[in-house]
Amino acid sequence: MISLADLQRRISSGALSADAAIAQSLEAIGAHEKSIGAFVCHSETVRAASDGPLRGIAVGIKDIIDTSDFPTEMGCPAIYGGWQPRADAPVVMMLKQAGATIIGKTTTTAFAANDPPATVNPHNRDHTPGGSSSGSAAAVGAGMIPLALGTQTGGSVIRPASFCGVAAIKPSFRMLPTIGVKCFSWTLDTVGLFAAGVRDLAQGLSAITSRPELLPGAAMQTPRIGVVTQDFAGAPETASGEALRIAAMAAERAGASVRTLPLPQIIAQAWRIHSVVQFFEAHQAMAWEYRANYDAVPPLLRARLDETLGITPAAYDDARSIAHRARGAVDELFKEVDVLLTFSAPGAAPRGLASTGDTRFNRLWTLMGVPCVNVPAYVADGGLPVGVQVIARFGNDAGALKAARFVEDALARG
Amino acid sequence: MISLADLQRRISSGALSADAAIAQSLEAIGAHEKSIGAFVCHSETVRAASDGPLRGIAVGIKDIIDTSDFPTEMGCPAIYGGWQPRADAPVVMMLKQAGATIIGKTTTTAFAANDPPATVNPHNRDHTPGGSSSGSAAAVGAGMIPLALGTQTGGSVIRPASFCGVAAIKPSFRMLPTIGVKCFSWTLDTVGLFAAGVRDLAQGLSAITSRPELLPGAAMQTPRIGVVTQDFAGAPETASGEALRIAAMAAERAGASVRTLPLPQIIAQAWRIHSVVQFFEAHQAMAWEYRANYDAVPPLLRARLDETLGITPAAYDDARSIAHRARGAVDELFKEVDVLLTFSAPGAAPRGLASTGDTRFNRLWTLMGVPCVNVPAYVADGGLPVGVQVIARFGNDAGALKAARFVEDALARG
Repeated sequence: MISLADLQRRISSGALSADAAIAQSLEAIGAHEKSIGAFVCHSETVRAASDGPLRGIAVGIKDIIDTSDFPTEMGCPAIYGGWQPRADAPVVMMLKQAGATIIGKTTTTAFAANDPPATVNPHNRDHTPGGSSSGSAAAVGAGMIPLALGTQTGGSVIRPASFCGVAAIKPSFRMLPTIGVKCFSWTLDTVGLFAAGVRDLAQGLSAITSRPELLPGAAMQTPRIGVVTQDFAGAPETASGEALRIAAMAAERAGASVRTLPLPQIIAQAWRIHSVVQFFEAHQAMAWEYRANYDAVPPLLRARLDETLGITPAAYDDARSIAHRARGAVDELFKEVDVLLTFSAPGAAPRGLASTGDTRFNRLWTLMGVPCVNVPAYVADGGLPVGVQVIARFGNDAGALKAARFVEDALARG
Repeated sequence: MISLADLQRRISSGALSADAAIAQSLEAIGAHEKSIGAFVCHSETVRAASDGPLRGIAVGIKDIIDTSDFPTEMGCPAIYGGWQPRADAPVVMMLKQAGATIIGKTTTTAFAANDPPATVNPHNRDHTPGGSSSGSAAAVGAGMIPLALGTQTGGSVIRPASFCGVAAIKPSFRMLPTIGVKCFSWTLDTVGLFAAGVRDLAQGLSAITSRPELLPGAAMQTPRIGVVTQDFAGAPETASGEALRIAAMAAERAGASVRTLPLPQIIAQAWRIHSVVQFFEAHQAMAWEYRANYDAVPPLLRARLDETLGITPAAYDDARSIAHRARGAVDELFKEVDVLLTFSAPGAAPRGLASTGDTRFNRLWTLMGVPCVNVPAYVADGGLPVGVQVIARFGNDAGALKAARFVEDALARG
């Protein structure tokens, strides 16, 4: 993989020109894209910016995010084929202002829902890369680009990162603006980043947001870690159980205090009503597509919308109230521990491309709005990576990154 | 003015066909639009829907809200001239699903900020109709249409309603989705409605949201009203002072318990940091326009963006924390009273079209996310209307409408 932090260091020192760094990504795309299919489109003629902390960094943008110089097809050419937005989404402008180069648009499930693109897993081409941010995870995982944007409404950043063996952060809700990002659920949609490692994520997120507190200093000294198994979401497969066990053991060996933390009942309830919030809002957010273009909506999404037609405003209000109380309960957990550690996905990437996998270990944390970082922890049969997620209090993205770095370092020491 | 509730009653009873109701709006537009200038564009060939609670209701849509069958120029033809969105915004789809007919797009200040359109006040053409939802307020006030959509980030719904003598509601934050609405500040932007009277608003909002609890039953019995003068925002002009005095007296005569309520210090602080939230977010939301089209951004907005370039993430985080605490303090107020009653604007509509007026009595309530209803209360020199606003607890839109109806009835009895 291409490390963003390494590139920055070599560009700053003059060892590498910013244009050469972009050329390196173009070359890697030339070598791998044909077999991976991570891009909807990309440009061969892009240049590096002359300044900014991300000069020389080639970025892939999930194709539900508006770009003024690439079409934005939402993973659904039947409705948005060739659609050219007028403006760049704010988060794309933030990247450009930081000096990054937008190199292309990455594949996505249709409208960031369930219908998969043809992208394959860079570690095993018989398997899905996950979704909905399929192309962003695969492009970073295949070593084509050092940074990519994705979005998560259920588990669309953390899960594909886990499947593709890359680091990723779903920051605190609304740290990165969702304006100009095709909406599925305005309470849940969260823009996130994919990169080679945790330090790369921190460098990228800090540069985009102009938040120096996110910059990687030292990893956290002996964090207090609460391991949560989310029993309400069912049991994990062996590979994810192994990943969590290995990560917790490595952290403990490295000096962290590690203990299992039960989750109160209100949090299990919040997990259950995630889909009420998601689909009540989706029926509004996707109303034009669903009502005016019903036949062109891809089948898995259309079936989900058909099934969820009857959610009432009263049920939605109740769900929001449960989510509000659960956020309070999650806040309480962080009085006892610095971060939580849990599964990033039920297991390794499923075989085939029919499904991008299951969001059951992700959706609670999206609804809670808390920062989540995927750290690769284990390699299962077939060379398939499996990650764990490190979760901090709302607004404590710096803490999530520091603790994730600690876990990453601990795992590297073995 | 055209009463939505009256039209509904006559259409239901068969006394008026839905198509005849639309024709009545087209005729009124033909008679008044030339002298008011409330529309950017409208269609002469629209038809009524065959069913839905809003069949026969012609609606004007503020021209920062995406429509699939009208261009959306954002009040800034220099950047968005002829721009045709692909999809209808969710709130437009909600209107269509309720049977309403979108009759055209109403004028707005550029990007719903400060640069005024050429629209005049229907009560006195030497005066502004207010803004930023200028055309929506003027079109309803001039009797051209029974319902219009606007948006409020500072005071862009309640203030023009006050100036144009119409009822309006800024509902609880996010009751109406802002997806497909050009963003200025995602924490503040709120979609609202203009109609002839409070009952019309309630019928309209209930039909759009499928929330029967908003339907007008009886007006509230003897509400407990807290009068707030927002001293931190400066003194009102005589006309607004009179409007508040008259409305409070009328309510008391009608049996309400009315008392003056002081606001705690944290609420004054929240009023002060509204612009920190607004412009930190505007610099992200409007980054493409400001950075890639600087010379085409209209002068008043450009100057405001130039002035507010330096707001740091830390200042923004502090402002959000103040807003969060102030929301808690506002919640406390509603343990003592059912609603608050305060100024809708500093005075009557200013003379001339150079300014759309001042948001200082509105911006706190936008930041608090609470439902606000404008009720016309007084007519100042020059025939200029002046309103008051009735404010309820977050989520209690039904209570805000009921109490506003009580005040409206009390004022009608004189």
